[in-house]
Formats: sequence, C-alpha cells, structure tokens
Amino acid sequence: LRAATAIFEGDSFERLLPRAHAGPTLAENNGRQLDGLAPVAATEALARDFVLRGGKHFRPVITLAAFDAVTGGTATSPHGDESLAQIPDTVRRIALAMELFHKASLVHDDIEDDDPLRYGQPTLHRQFGIPLALNAGDYLIGLGYRVVAGGQGDLPSEMIGDILVRLADAHAKLCEGQGAELAWRGARDKRIEPLESLRIYALKTAPAFEAALYAGLRLGGAAEVYREPAARFARHLGVAFQILNDLDDWRDHQPNKGTAGGDVLAGRPTVLWAMALESLAPEDQRRLVELVSNVPGDGEATIRQVRDLYGRAGVYDKAVRLVAKHRDRAHAVADTIQPDALCRLLHYLADTILDG
Amino acid sequence: LRAATAIFEGDSFERLLPRAHAGPTLAENNGRQLDGLAPVAATEALARDFVLRGGKHFRPVITLAAFDAVTGGTATSPHGDESLAQIPDTVRRIALAMELFHKASLVHDDIEDDDPLRYGQPTLHRQFGIPLALNAGDYLIGLGYRVVAGGQGDLPSEMIGDILVRLADAHAKLCEGQGAELAWRGARDKRIEPLESLRIYALKTAPAFEAALYAGLRLGGAAEVYREPAARFARHLGVAFQILNDLDDWRDHQPNKGTAGGDVLAGRPTVLWAMALESLAPEDQRRLVELVSNVPGDGEATIRQVRDLYGRAGVYDKAVRLVAKHRDRAHAVADTIQPDALCRLLHYLADTILDG
Repeated sequence: LRAATAIFEGDSFERLLPRAHAGPTLAENNGRQLDGLAPVAATEALARDFVLRGGKHFRPVITLAAFDAVTGGTATSPHGDESLAQIPDTVRRIALAMELFHKASLVHDDIEDDDPLRYGQPTLHRQFGIPLALNAGDYLIGLGYRVVAGGQGDLPSEMIGDILVRLADAHAKLCEGQGAELAWRGARDKRIEPLESLRIYALKTAPAFEAALYAGLRLGGAAEVYREPAARFARHLGVAFQILNDLDDWRDHQPNKGTAGGDVLAGRPTVLWAMALESLAPEDQRRLVELVSNVPGDGEATIRQVRDLYGRAGVYDKAVRLVAKHRDRAHAVADTIQPDALCRLLHYLADTILDG
Repeated sequence: LRAATAIFEGDSFERLLPRAHAGPTLAENNGRQLDGLAPVAATEALARDFVLRGGKHFRPVITLAAFDAVTGGTATSPHGDESLAQIPDTVRRIALAMELFHKASLVHDDIEDDDPLRYGQPTLHRQFGIPLALNAGDYLIGLGYRVVAGGQGDLPSEMIGDILVRLADAHAKLCEGQGAELAWRGARDKRIEPLESLRIYALKTAPAFEAALYAGLRLGGAAEVYREPAARFARHLGVAFQILNDLDDWRDHQPNKGTAGGDVLAGRPTVLWAMALESLAPEDQRRLVELVSNVPGDGEATIRQVRDLYGRAGVYDKAVRLVAKHRDRAHAVADTIQPDALCRLLHYLADTILDG
C-alpha cells in the first residue's frame, strides 16, 4: 500500500492542504529556525514541517484502503497502487486529517514524556520549547477538524457528521487512556492488574485505528453494519500493536528512544510490568517495585535487574503469546467480514501493522 | 444575562454533559488529589473540575443570547431570564461546548506562559504537572467537538457541519495568534508595528467570539447573511477586549497574575509595547528594549521604569482611545443589524464585555 502514503509527498500534500501563509517553509528558512519567519506564519510552518518528518502513516492508509475496499477497489491486489491512485481528493483529505490528529498527539505525548527524539530528530519541544510545541500540536488538531468538517462542501453533511462524531469520540478516549497512564505514573501504588493495563492500551491506541477505519468505510457509503466488528478488530489490533511497542522498548538502538527499558525508567503501566508483578514471588515483587522507585538512580543497573526479573517472570514469552492471541482475534473478526476485498484488507492490516 | 450561565451550575452541567465514569468527582475525592481515583477516570475528573472553577462564560452567553435574539426571544429585556430559560438543551449543549474549548485554551495558555494562578487557585499544571494538565486540555477539546458533532442526532447535519467548520477555523486561527505571540517572544528583534500587534490580537481573541456568535445565529436558522458583519463585530470586540486586558495588566492585585507589568516581564508583543516603541525618542526606545532584555533582573525596578517610559510615550491614553475606537466600531456594526433583538444584543455585548 505504498501509494497510499503518497499523500504526504510534497506536491500532493500542498495540493490537498494548501498553506494559508506565503513565505518560506521551515525547511526553506535558514537552519530550520523560526527567526526570519513572520510571527503569524510561524505556527503553520512549524506544524507542517513536523507532519512531513516521517511516520508509517498507518491511520491514513487504513482510511484510504477501507474506502477502496468497499467501493470495489483492489488495493490489496498486485495492482493495488492503481486502485488507490483513483481515490478522489475529497477522501484523501480526510485520510490526511487522520495523520494530522496522530501527529498532534505525538507532539503532545513527547512533551508529556519529555522524549528527546522523534523520527531521528530532536522532538519539537526540545527544539523549540514547550510553549511553541504545545501550540503547534493544538494547531494540528484544529487543522484536522477543519479539514474533515470542510469536506461537507463536496460530501453529504450526514457522512461528515458521522465521521466527526467517531473522531471526536476517539480523541476524548485517547486522552482518557493517556491520562490514565500519566495518573498511574504519579500514583503511589505501583500495582496494576494485567487486564487494567490492557484496558489503558485499548484506550490509547484502538480508538484512532477504529476512527480511521470507520472514516474510510463511511466515506464509501453506509458503515453502520461494520461499526461493531470494526471496533472489535481495532481493539485487538491496537492492543497487539501496543504490546509489540512494549517489547520493542527492550531492544537496543531504537530510533526514537535513548536506551532499552525506557518504559520502566519512565514508570509506565505496561502489561509487562503488570504480568511481572502478577507472577513473581512476593520477595521479587518487592524488589521490582523498589528498583523502579529508586529512579533516578543508576539507570543501567536498574534496567539490567528489571530485565532479569522480567525474564524470571517469563513476561517476554507471555507478551509474545498475548500479541499472538490478539492478532488471531483480529484475524477471526476479519474472517466474518464481507465483501471479500474488505475481508482481505483487514487480514492484510493485521499482518502489516503487527509484523514487528 | 445571568440565567445564561446557569448551564454551568451543578445539576444543569451534569444533565447536559453526563459523566462517562462513575466514582467520586475531584472535589469529592480527598483533598482534590488524583490518588484514589481510578486511573481511567482521572482525566474526566480533572477536566470537569477545572471547567467548574470559574469564568465569566462570555462565549456560551453569546451563543445562547444570539440564538434567543434570532428566534424571537427577549433575553436583553427585563424579563430576559425567562426567555433564556426556554432555550432547548440541544442549543445549551453547544453553548456549553464553547466554554469547553475556551477552558482548554486557558489550560494550555497557562502552561505556555507558566502562569501560577487561575480563578484564584493554582493553575492546573502547577497543581498536577504539565503532562496531566496538557492532556486534560486535549481531552476538553475532544469533548467539545464530541458535544457539537453529537448534536446532529437532534439538529440538521448541515447546521452542525456549518458550526463545526467555523469552530475548527477559529481553533486553528487562535493557535496561529498564540503561536505568533510565542514566536515573537522568542525572537531577537523586539520591534513590532502596532498594526501587527493588533493583527495578533485579532487572531487570539476574535475567532472564538465570532464562532460563538455564529453558532447561536446558525442554531436559530440561516446565518449566512450575518457572517460578514458578525466577523467584523467580533474583530472589534476581540481587539478592544484584548487591549483592555493589556491595560488591566498594569493594575495591581489582579486575580490571575502576580504583579503589575507581567506582560512586559513575559515579553509579550502588546500594543502598548508597540506604541511605546513607535513614539518614544530613539534613546528611550533603546532603553526600553534594553530593560526588557535584561529580564530576569530586578523585576520591580524594571516594571517601574517601563511604566515610566510607557507614561512618557502616552501609551495608556492611546490605548484607552483605541479601545473606544474599536468599541465604537462594534456599536456601528450593531447599528446595521436586523432584527431589533439582535441589534440590541450586539450593543449589549459590546457594553458588557468591554465594561472594564
């Protein structure tokens, strides 16, 4: 589905979402600095530059491919690129909005986690400070809603309205999931049930997949029949995706993070953590909680010992099995879906997004 | 229009916008702390508590009263409260959303400015940290869009769609205005033309007034005929409102700020600053720029000297005249508007919002 991401290539992006302000882009401005840009053009320049920095574009791809699948397209066939190339700009714009929302959430999450890197570059707040980065994220949210709401010039108002309801619902749920994680990180009690951590995962990841899928289906016509299975599919996909992220956090040399074990140092309520506390002997549980409570201490030593305790608890294997379980369930939902093109697409998405 | 703000009183707020999570509110939880709340309920609890902390509710009042004015109501008459009491919940909910967006922008602005106080209490980020506060603001934005988009169950989709387009447009413009201010604060060149500072003001304040006004008019029926004059009215209202805020910043004992002159210490591109640089002698201009570049230094001494230079430049008087000019222009727009009830309302809003 490479063609789907073509909407983020320069010309296409400019055509679908023209700039409001003339003048140089951030990349064209001397040394990617704001100095020299007109103040009223700075936010647009900053935000658009960030949108184009990278990403896998899963969410817009889901929207485009779902639209294609229910309108007789053949995106997942060998000639899929041609099929995707025929998708109208009205639909592409809404797919693009999915990425604007996602990028906004990355900017804000990076502030909340004080992550240093994103797409191999300094995060926006490390580069420009929290105020400008926060505001650029807000701007991208506004832009996303404006793009979708503006679609009613060409598409039926009910269609746009239905999509906006799902999008705003996903937006609020995502914040509830992120807030749950943040609240847990600040709480004294470091216990959490694996099911509770999965519930937070479902809130953090699934709603955006679900909204992107719903948008594509709704743009293709009536989508009510798909709503329940699409939500289930997105939940399994999102949960599996998040567990894979947690496992990735234990690999060295990740592109966006400093070292392995960052989730532990940041005190995140991962399912790995929850499963470790669940299955370790009481003494090891105490040791695990103590290790993390001592942060900041010797980060590397902490990580080594946590890795050891996680291994002893068998959480890496358990997590891999949990990913497989949710992947299987996503495939099982896909099996129940008609038409064939959509069925194939969901299988394809489960395979592609979970290929980690 | 006191009755209009009744939508924020406990029962009404709960009825219009039921909570998604059971359990104690933040106020009911021990000492207004998050500890003890379920993590997935924390964001809702935090955000709703902030919404109810205070505020003048100008934006929802504008929506309610504009709806009332174009649907034969008599909100600005002596029996106005009865007229407002008959506004249906579908309209009230959308008015309430205007306040949700406004409150979200306050939470984020307070982070960006690192303001210590809001409504006489610590700002959300000072109390709960930047991550939770930022996320609570994001949640309020999502909730606002969800409330408005959800209105299409009871109201025509085109109506809701039109309102969402104006809202998202206001949202993006507000961020451009805020970003312009932030970018200017970080820039080396501290000169700014008064007209440029007024342009930033127009972006920061007017779009939200305009969207709130448009929403009320559109909920009352067709609003296209009002769009252009409503935008002009909102621009004059917003600019005058912002200049009054700037003048207020020079009074002592303001409820949300520490001391007078905070705008200068924060390096804001106020019209006072722009007018001072415009009319001071070159030597005094240099002194003014130098004073502010030395921050952090002796804050009180700086403020005293800036106050003196501002006085010498006559900017306080000029600003008062500028407020009067924009107030007059807002009234002049109001004079051109029919029906009478709407004409009276706009005069009333200009008087009430600019009574500082």
